[in-house]
Amino acid sequence: MENYRTYLTEEEIPTHYYNLRADMPTKPAPLLNPGTHQPMTKDELVGVFCEELVDQELDNDTRFIEIPEEVRDYYKNYRPSPLVRAYNLEKKLGTPAKIYFKFEGNNTSGSHKLNSAVAQAYYAKKQGLKGVTTETGAGQWGTAMSMACSYFGLECDVYMVKVSYEQKPFRREVMRTYGANVTASPSNTTEVGKRLLEEFPDTTGSLGCAISEAVESAVTRDGYRYVLGSVLNLVLLHQSVIGLESKTAFEKIGVKPDIIIGCTGGGSNLGGLIAPFMGEKLRGEADYRFIGAEPTSCPSFTRGVFAYDFADTGHVCPLAKMYTIGSGYIPAPNHAGGLRFHGMSPILSQLYHDGMMEAVAYKQTEVFEAAETFANAEGILPAPESSHAIKAAIEEALKCKETGEEKVIFFGLSGTGYFDLKAYEQYNDGTMNDYTPTDEELAEAIATVPEV
Amino acid sequence: MENYRTYLTEEEIPTHYYNLRADMPTKPAPLLNPGTHQPMTKDELVGVFCEELVDQELDNDTRFIEIPEEVRDYYKNYRPSPLVRAYNLEKKLGTPAKIYFKFEGNNTSGSHKLNSAVAQAYYAKKQGLKGVTTETGAGQWGTAMSMACSYFGLECDVYMVKVSYEQKPFRREVMRTYGANVTASPSNTTEVGKRLLEEFPDTTGSLGCAISEAVESAVTRDGYRYVLGSVLNLVLLHQSVIGLESKTAFEKIGVKPDIIIGCTGGGSNLGGLIAPFMGEKLRGEADYRFIGAEPTSCPSFTRGVFAYDFADTGHVCPLAKMYTIGSGYIPAPNHAGGLRFHGMSPILSQLYHDGMMEAVAYKQTEVFEAAETFANAEGILPAPESSHAIKAAIEEALKCKETGEEKVIFFGLSGTGYFDLKAYEQYNDGTMNDYTPTDEELAEAIATVPEV
Repeated sequence: MENYRTYLTEEEIPTHYYNLRADMPTKPAPLLNPGTHQPMTKDELVGVFCEELVDQELDNDTRFIEIPEEVRDYYKNYRPSPLVRAYNLEKKLGTPAKIYFKFEGNNTSGSHKLNSAVAQAYYAKKQGLKGVTTETGAGQWGTAMSMACSYFGLECDVYMVKVSYEQKPFRREVMRTYGANVTASPSNTTEVGKRLLEEFPDTTGSLGCAISEAVESAVTRDGYRYVLGSVLNLVLLHQSVIGLESKTAFEKIGVKPDIIIGCTGGGSNLGGLIAPFMGEKLRGEADYRFIGAEPTSCPSFTRGVFAYDFADTGHVCPLAKMYTIGSGYIPAPNHAGGLRFHGMSPILSQLYHDGMMEAVAYKQTEVFEAAETFANAEGILPAPESSHAIKAAIEEALKCKETGEEKVIFFGLSGTGYFDLKAYEQYNDGTMNDYTPTDEELAEAIATVPEV
Repeated sequence: MENYRTYLTEEEIPTHYYNLRADMPTKPAPLLNPGTHQPMTKDELVGVFCEELVDQELDNDTRFIEIPEEVRDYYKNYRPSPLVRAYNLEKKLGTPAKIYFKFEGNNTSGSHKLNSAVAQAYYAKKQGLKGVTTETGAGQWGTAMSMACSYFGLECDVYMVKVSYEQKPFRREVMRTYGANVTASPSNTTEVGKRLLEEFPDTTGSLGCAISEAVESAVTRDGYRYVLGSVLNLVLLHQSVIGLESKTAFEKIGVKPDIIIGCTGGGSNLGGLIAPFMGEKLRGEADYRFIGAEPTSCPSFTRGVFAYDFADTGHVCPLAKMYTIGSGYIPAPNHAGGLRFHGMSPILSQLYHDGMMEAVAYKQTEVFEAAETFANAEGILPAPESSHAIKAAIEEALKCKETGEEKVIFFGLSGTGYFDLKAYEQYNDGTMNDYTPTDEELAEAIATVPEV
């Protein structure tokens, strides 16, 4: 019998990130200057982002980009992550399908976010910066960035979406333990925060707003740059380690997945997971079905438009061409915090637009039902975000049960739910809501997408 | 360079538990009937515990006991656990010592407790029971037992020490997610609980009291037995998988530890970690220094007496010969919850009494200081319990820095601190206390040890 867990050796940790853009026939559209609507140049971007990260963001051609040795050394603290055969889940579902997942939650940040945080902190340090600023929704990215900054000796200022700051005080303490300064967003520490608080004093915040605050805090101080944990091309580049390790592990055990599933908020997990597989598909070397699973409360892929939009509420960031439901959309306080973003990675948006992948949306309670099924079968308590992928995988496995097909279903378990117990409590108590915007609400939000 | 992490293959998961008692020249003293003060017989014990577990408890002779295939299958969900070279901690301390740790926290229970929980649930199921009752302090054991019962289809009633129940509502939700019934102890659901509440209405509870309640709940109902996560010989037997895997991993990399360190409350982690190494020492095949690290707030080894005592406050359990500070001792609400037990494993107590191992006690703030040093160096946020071992390992590593010795220091990282963020918050805020009982307080508690 095949093993439960396939671990690569440390030598098999990828030496290079894989840049999916090099294999895309239609490249993701460039970021635009919000004032001039012209493509952002390196000179414009380096005021906000670290220089080498800007190079990575703009590079649509280099297929493989070397992972610095210092970053690989940190990866060895928690990578390679296991590829797990979900025998117990298969048995519980009574499906002939083979289910696998790549488990990215076995590190203190609790998710895949650390993969990019380490790289971004490394480049910031290399550039001689004092520190970085960033935002965090559910808290995983902020925790990851705090850990990475602590390791490389950088200051780390985190703007945390207010609803998460209040619902997840423990996340805040993890960040403080790693030396970060954590501020609830919107806050009075920035101009954009002050404006928003004046207009909506009761707002629970959003990722879009926290991004605006973090960017303002970086560009108005010497020696600081802004770092972002999703959406950007450079982030998907770093997250390709997930897919690369998965591919090597599958080759080791002689298995080829038929369906590859990931949850998707800004797209960092899904983009990293599918990258090398999608590359094969784009090059005509293999075929896979790719499915992005998102919440009905924030349905960028399934109900959004493909257009240039702001990544942030304060409109200080460049415009990105992506699936979006409008930067004016302030999502309901949905506990799957990491998926509460109105837009989607330009890379994934282009691929979706080109028909290379599918998307599904799930309600919160059905996602938690899947989470509990998974937790009881496989032991691991999943993050609400990741549970969207679990739900989609279970759906596909149940289809196989009907048809008798022995498909290989592979999903990304991007994180653990140890800091989401308030949400589990609501689910256990039967008090969880299934908020989904109406067509009118959505149309109003989409109306905030600018004409470019 | 040697790898950061050494993983065994699934085939290298031990097939047998190692029973250290078989190699002990002086066996641990038998449990005594609290009424007659005669050694407990199998017939007496099977009313409380599962039958095969009683056999394991009483077996001082069989060196290796087979691990059932169903238990090994579950182990594959999270084992083998990694042996980690703490390169970053070594660098941070500037020590010539080589530091290794065995990381048992990479499962949803957050600690090594799952190793015994799975075995105990398996034997309960095999015996045809409806369910089990147990107690939990910090919550790790209750979580582990909930997970194991969910897997094997058993009911699980958990009495949770009140102070933890209130400080760790999230632990409770994890248990509920795995289908357990969780009750704050002392409670009105048992006679012993009612009595204690009458006498001390404001008590924050203790492990000793929760044990009494869980035992009463098991013996007064059909189809239930009591399960315990520490102290007992059978638990140390199951936890020997930690030491066995560690030993195999060290042999693989050709390294022999000089000093082996574990935190110790009831002794399950320390006893399992050191078992095969201590066996070598007892058989004269190798020499090691063994150090148990405990909190000054509950100093059984360092300030207790070696005597027969009750394991529980209600005095319904058998008497065990052990290092104890008295079953009447109700520890201060110390956040290192898992170490808040007045007694110590009879096996470890005998070995300590025989001069085969050492013990040290640390104050809470110095333990958290060590925890933060470790977290920032190695990434992993450690449990407060485990951080006692980290503190001892750091102390030994700093001694090596002074002497220039390149000793190999090995400690057990028994769990993660994701559910201990209130304690970290206190430490970060500077409001943590260093409660240590005075000589008078301790003498008063020790006076509750019965004359046998």
